Amino acid sequence: MTEIEAKFANRGLKMPASNCKQALLPQGAQVLPNPAGTAPGLIWQPRPGLTLLTFPGVPAEMQRMWQETAVPYLKSQGWGQEIIFSRLLKFTGIGESALAEKVAPFFELTNPTVAPYASLGQVRLRLTAKAPCENQAIALINPVAQQLQAIAGEDYFGCDDDTLASVVGQLLQQAGQTLSVAESCTGGGLGGELTSIPGSSRYFWGGVIAYDNQVKIALLKVDPEAIAQGGAVSETVAAQMALGVRARLGTSWGLSITGIAGPGGGSDSKPLGTVCFGLASSDGQVTSATEQLGARTRETIRQRSVSIALDKLRRRLLKSVC
Amino acid sequence: MTEIEAKFANRGLKMPASNCKQALLPQGAQVLPNPAGTAPGLIWQPRPGLTLLTFPGVPAEMQRMWQETAVPYLKSQGWGQEIIFSRLLKFTGIGESALAEKVAPFFELTNPTVAPYASLGQVRLRLTAKAPCENQAIALINPVAQQLQAIAGEDYFGCDDDTLASVVGQLLQQAGQTLSVAESCTGGGLGGELTSIPGSSRYFWGGVIAYDNQVKIALLKVDPEAIAQGGAVSETVAAQMALGVRARLGTSWGLSITGIAGPGGGSDSKPLGTVCFGLASSDGQVTSATEQLGARTRETIRQRSVSIALDKLRRRLLKSVC
Repeated sequence: MTEIEAKFANRGLKMPASNCKQALLPQGAQVLPNPAGTAPGLIWQPRPGLTLLTFPGVPAEMQRMWQETAVPYLKSQGWGQEIIFSRLLKFTGIGESALAEKVAPFFELTNPTVAPYASLGQVRLRLTAKAPCENQAIALINPVAQQLQAIAGEDYFGCDDDTLASVVGQLLQQAGQTLSVAESCTGGGLGGELTSIPGSSRYFWGGVIAYDNQVKIALLKVDPEAIAQGGAVSETVAAQMALGVRARLGTSWGLSITGIAGPGGGSDSKPLGTVCFGLASSDGQVTSATEQLGARTRETIRQRSVSIALDKLRRRLLKSVC
Repeated sequence: MTEIEAKFANRGLKMPASNCKQALLPQGAQVLPNPAGTAPGLIWQPRPGLTLLTFPGVPAEMQRMWQETAVPYLKSQGWGQEIIFSRLLKFTGIGESALAEKVAPFFELTNPTVAPYASLGQVRLRLTAKAPCENQAIALINPVAQQLQAIAGEDYFGCDDDTLASVVGQLLQQAGQTLSVAESCTGGGLGGELTSIPGSSRYFWGGVIAYDNQVKIALLKVDPEAIAQGGAVSETVAAQMALGVRARLGTSWGLSITGIAGPGGGSDSKPLGTVCFGLASSDGQVTSATEQLGARTRETIRQRSVSIALDKLRRRLLKSVC
């Protein structure tokens, strides 16, 4: 209690009576000092083999106590001789169960452990090692990571903070190439994702949001006949959009998306979630493809379309760069 | 226990011994039936004035139990004679404390209550009423909502699920007008936000992602001299981008963004977070403005830029529509 009174006195205050209860401890407990406030924590061993540490609820106080008093106490008790270090490997174009089947034996490992996580269009494997220091943990993780990458091949796209957009950016920079985009159903989302990467102006020049067919025709030189015959969501139109934006902006690559994001607009022959992609390269060639993303929400179809477009370019760049 | 055994029998299964413990109840407790699984819930009154209801942790079972057995039980006990109904009013262009000052007396109300919430660039007021039915709750909320809207004026932009993009879309449709965008630092994010609204093709035609200055010059007819003299982030260039995209796409309005989203690229005269906006209208006029969004993250500056651009158009449309 004297210590708490002293803290108030230091600030020129008298301790309120209600603060007395901050000085009450369970029998046998020690104080875990609080360098940032009046409420102390506890170190309490109610029975052998069980140690409780308590902290005040104020985040700033709790955080300073953890660093300045709890960690030193725990280390003095023999804890913290080992650190835990994780690396996240990221995959796309392969489902969680298909990847899990390929790498099943790795789930039996104990150091590092390998655990799968799935999210929209991506699967991740978290490799976690225990070691006396980070370098030794990395030395445990690296050979396993390399084996997993070799098994997954091009379905592996990066680790930790990598995104499809950042990986595409690295590949374009390595090749000294540039990119433009032509977007219909994603309405700018592909450009938005590419430019979320700082420094993307080095390889991304811009593009055309061709939401209305007149814009596809006027700015991208899409043939009105192609739209009339095959519809705006067709591989022909996707190919012409990619060729058109590449020619107009003068970039190495032109990447396009046109699809049915819904909720309306689907038909028997082109259901909701039908999305066509085009990729034009500097040799004047163009490839296009159709993906069926299913009757999902508008937002999901648009997000998946952006990821698939980036992944198609990534795989093409891997072939031309390596 | 017989009931649980029967559920297994219905599926042609014998009850595992471990399921026996699902039949154990505290003394004096009743079963809260589970229509979707074997684990029942409890209705337990350990002391007068305290009733506990328990549910299994499986979300689908819990949800069906809540609807099918818990709510009927609670209603039979005299609960649920009143409903709670909320409406969220949304404001932008005014800070939380400035709005709170203007509407302070409303925070004293008890039915409905009025509570403020702030998020990035938006303030919301939640009006919550208790009444025997939804219509009566709305009748309590509406007059208060109207007063709050009148006090806030144009800073009020919508309620509940409205977004700036959906409100802009409604205003454009009411006026029978169309929109195109020219984006530099947002890289497509403005088009992406506009096209997140189903049916946006009725008023949004598309745009140009002019990330590189050559694209601003080639596609938007921005004067290279203007870029050389005032920089790509300037009101002159923003104005030319808006005029250029409107002219090229033939829409009623052209809306542009050019700014410094960082993390690099700032200078003393144009610090990080400097963003210029342009708005061209069908009479050939254009307005432009600069906002200082401060040294925030790239993602925050880009998101705020999109919202501010939409809000500038919204206020302009309010003037011309009303």
